[in-house]
Amino acid sequence: MYLAKVYISLKPTVNDPQGLTIKGALYNLGFTSVEDVRAGKYIEIRIEENDLAEAQQQVNEMCHKLLANPVIENYRFELEEV
Amino acid sequence: MYLAKVYISLKPTVNDPQGLTIKGALYNLGFTSVEDVRAGKYIEIRIEENDLAEAQQQVNEMCHKLLANPVIENYRFELEEV
Repeated sequence: MYLAKVYISLKPTVNDPQGLTIKGALYNLGFTSVEDVRAGKYIEIRIEENDLAEAQQQVNEMCHKLLANPVIENYRFELEEV
Repeated sequence: MYLAKVYISLKPTVNDPQGLTIKGALYNLGFTSVEDVRAGKYIEIRIEENDLAEAQQQVNEMCHKLLANPVIENYRFELEEV
């Protein structure tokens, strides 16, 4: 069994209103040294699969087909055996 | 300047409807080996700060005050100099 940790973030050129809102809120709370905030998604997936290469290929396909929007988002993932 | 990568996820005992929905969608796409999906947040924060310990303390405070809900969520973060 593998645990995939998937990190999805907006591409640097894409406008991020959620990140800007968080930045404003942090500023209002007194964190004035915050320069930039980008918001993304973090997804943990448990896969019943014993082969690392097969798990890797499946997670990659999941990201491409459903989890991330490749037009505006980047993704990366790590796999660990559990 | 430091870049903080903050990972926020629901505590294991908390119900996660978003994760269940993703799991169902993956199943329908043919990924039948998916056992469990947990959805969370991934936030990148750039801080104008030269001292690592000070940056660490600030990010911890940000998580506690705004980014995470400590009642139902866990968080962890990494700092890298940029």
